[in-house]
Amino acid sequence: MSEKLHKTAITPAGHTTPPAKFSHGVKKGNILQVAGQVGFGPAVPGQAPAPVGPTLREQSLQTLRNVQAVLEEGGASWEDVMMMRIYLTDTSHFAEFNAVYDAFFADLKEAPSARTTVYVGLPAGLLVEIDALAVLG
Amino acid sequence: MSEKLHKTAITPAGHTTPPAKFSHGVKKGNILQVAGQVGFGPAVPGQAPAPVGPTLREQSLQTLRNVQAVLEEGGASWEDVMMMRIYLTDTSHFAEFNAVYDAFFADLKEAPSARTTVYVGLPAGLLVEIDALAVLG
Amino acid sequence: MSEKLHKTAITPAGHTTPPAKFSHGVKKGNILQVAGQVGFGPAVPGQAPAPVGPTLREQSLQTLRNVQAVLEEGGASWEDVMMMRIYLTDTSHFAEFNAVYDAFFADLKEAPSARTTVYVGLPAGLLVEIDALAVLG
Repeated sequence: MSEKLHKTAITPAGHTTPPAKFSHGVKKGNILQVAGQVGFGPAVPGQAPAPVGPTLREQSLQTLRNVQAVLEEGGASWEDVMMMRIYLTDTSHFAEFNAVYDAFFADLKEAPSARTTVYVGLPAGLLVEIDALAVLG
Repeated sequence: MSEKLHKTAITPAGHTTPPAKFSHGVKKGNILQVAGQVGFGPAVPGQAPAPVGPTLREQSLQTLRNVQAVLEEGGASWEDVMMMRIYLTDTSHFAEFNAVYDAFFADLKEAPSARTTVYVGLPAGLLVEIDALAVLG
Repeated sequence: MSEKLHKTAITPAGHTTPPAKFSHGVKKGNILQVAGQVGFGPAVPGQAPAPVGPTLREQSLQTLRNVQAVLEEGGASWEDVMMMRIYLTDTSHFAEFNAVYDAFFADLKEAPSARTTVYVGLPAGLLVEIDALAVLG
């Protein structure tokens, strides 16, 4: 006899308010989905969300930290992540992004997640967006 | 003892025929995946699929209705959706799209799904494409 | 009492080494995620990964074969695939890609997977990238 699953929103304390009716993360059963995160710093009351800096390195690190905050708030960790989708804006950023990524994940114990990287348009000033799918348990 | 899971296609009655060998939606176990939907109106025999109108608003609403038709045909609802991927073609459309989106989801009871929005190329005349992942139960 | 799920990397023998700390595929419970695959031929020691050819047809077939290698290494098949994400670089490639796709999947027995196709930037020389989500069991 299976229990009814409940979908819960995941909202890290410092995160900026989403610009539309969506959640930074949701969890249902053993599936956790992290919404597209960007390099915004912690929310500041009365101020519009803004990236922590103009560089790919700054934004990539902050974006990964923002994904991590959603994972942790949802009781998950990077070890649970199955897939990361990386959206960059310029193919010339690939090598630098990968250097940041590899350093960030240097201590991963389980198999690294799968990943897809494509080059798209993003709102002005943003160089990277990342979302993630995790399976818990 | 676990039963063998079966994958089933989800094909809403009015939907246009996919342009290749893919399903508008599939369901297996408690996972339901909606394929990328666009603003096509109901299929008309002998006519090529066409968007319901040229504007972002018209196409966004119709695209959401088309996603909903797949969800409902598969026994799911918006409350079950974990992730929506929004593909727009122009960053200047973000605010207007969000206004349509928020009005459409005004009556949602559960946590809104996670979401990622990126800006890509789409076939001529199409301004928006949306797909969705749902977890049932 | 449920067993702890373990995430395992899927690495087909001939696959080129990923350019960063990610896996070509991962499996956990009954979820298998294939990372974005491109038209690279089998790895050649001492040589950089390279597409099997310059044409859309060659690259599309090889990309599908590379996805298939990950599925098979993970104990899955196309019949288990729920979603494929197709990244092309040019809307004028859609019809030709679909012809290759439909021929490739002519013998599929179960419902074809859902699919989303969008047009993005890819590294120089690459015309197509594909990832896939499968549910086993």
